Amino acid sequence: MSTGDRVGRITVVGLGPGAARQMTPQAAAAVEAADLVFGYAPYLARLPERPGQERRPSDNREEIARASAALDAAVAGARVAMVSGGDPGVFAMAAAVCEAIEHGPDAWRALDLEVVPGVTAMLAVAARCGAPLGHDFCALSLSDNLKPWALVEKRLLLAAEAGFVIALYNPISRARPWQLGRAFALLRERLAGSVPVVFGRAAGREDERITLTTLADANPAQADMATCVIIGTADTRIVQRPGLPPLVYAPRSADRPVSPVEETAP
Amino acid sequence: MSTGDRVGRITVVGLGPGAARQMTPQAAAAVEAADLVFGYAPYLARLPERPGQERRPSDNREEIARASAALDAAVAGARVAMVSGGDPGVFAMAAAVCEAIEHGPDAWRALDLEVVPGVTAMLAVAARCGAPLGHDFCALSLSDNLKPWALVEKRLLLAAEAGFVIALYNPISRARPWQLGRAFALLRERLAGSVPVVFGRAAGREDERITLTTLADANPAQADMATCVIIGTADTRIVQRPGLPPLVYAPRSADRPVSPVEETAP
Repeated sequence: MSTGDRVGRITVVGLGPGAARQMTPQAAAAVEAADLVFGYAPYLARLPERPGQERRPSDNREEIARASAALDAAVAGARVAMVSGGDPGVFAMAAAVCEAIEHGPDAWRALDLEVVPGVTAMLAVAARCGAPLGHDFCALSLSDNLKPWALVEKRLLLAAEAGFVIALYNPISRARPWQLGRAFALLRERLAGSVPVVFGRAAGREDERITLTTLADANPAQADMATCVIIGTADTRIVQRPGLPPLVYAPRSADRPVSPVEETAP
Repeated sequence: MSTGDRVGRITVVGLGPGAARQMTPQAAAAVEAADLVFGYAPYLARLPERPGQERRPSDNREEIARASAALDAAVAGARVAMVSGGDPGVFAMAAAVCEAIEHGPDAWRALDLEVVPGVTAMLAVAARCGAPLGHDFCALSLSDNLKPWALVEKRLLLAAEAGFVIALYNPISRARPWQLGRAFALLRERLAGSVPVVFGRAAGREDERITLTTLADANPAQADMATCVIIGTADTRIVQRPGLPPLVYAPRSADRPVSPVEETAP
């Protein structure tokens, strides 16, 4: 551990979608420079070992406890890296670290905190099938661990009404088996069954699996914890290609008439 | 130019927000391998020169013409890179290339097309101020060049109603001077004046300028073409720190009661 600094520093690092070629040099350097690396065990397992560097793997829950341990270590003088897959600011550790700082001891607020962005899953999935996020879109976590399911449903309905392409993070897990099916059912009430849906698993990695289907046929069993689901709109285009996978993209133009938004209580 | 291949290939490359340390190795390799590099002139200017590599700079409009020229060159046997700042799939060239392919000659559909993702502007801006995109959010282009302004307004209203953090791309330009002011005015009717607003210009670059204000005080003159504007929600938190810039983040929890969505015509 470095003890020369008056206070340590903590860097929250986005490792990108998984392949080393999709991790930025800034992220690689931040990990390399750390004395102590915290993170969800499978993310730590992606990183090369370095003599003198300690690792503190954890499971994918207990984010505040993990953030607090990392902040304590930084206050004690260590150069700490906290790693996330994808981008740390998108449904990942940067918010947990900020939240811990807000509610923690004064010493945590004095730390040198840096967030290193990365390629988040929806961008990696989109790149593998064309440009399905090429126009206005939203990113929504389907987890109802920390927000009421009613809020997830409200956001899905409003996103569909707005014509946003929808990128779903955390679509399914052993503890949350029914939410994705319910989301598809809800969206089928508002969107045409022909709307394209992409299941993007482990984009850019060796075990990548990208599946194109429609909202009518979308089956929650096609998703797992490592999947980002992208749900298109009525405008999303599919381009068939001979001997190649189809391209999926959002046109840059939207020339259809616009129905007004109903006035609702704020 | 390579002429050994039966058909050429085209790679649409995301250069990231600007600093070399935020460009992925995959993107750097794709540019390096190209015979011919197309793109908006300021993006090309960021790249190291390579002997034997030709560049075709263009202005930031005429995206379909640029895509078509690149596809023609690829069909002729060149290894072509089309570069975008940030991520090519977010309000950038990947959708334009897909659109050109859909409407172009058969030969374009037979090309080996690869999209290389990058760190898009909103992630780079978010990283510089904490984690303002740490929960559900949307990305919206404020340009009404290719969609009616009424659709922009509708999406802003629905995004505010949904409680999405809003990342605005293309907030302002010489040809579109009033749209950002109108967007702020509209959002002030739905959101509290205290909602945090971040103007993030050239994040991660030497000329970076990150400004934190509120929706009540947000001034469109703080934005230019290189700015991504992030508009928080009533839940967005500001953490003051002694001698350091404040942190802005979206809490992971949302425990407030959920008002129902009004039924509207689809």
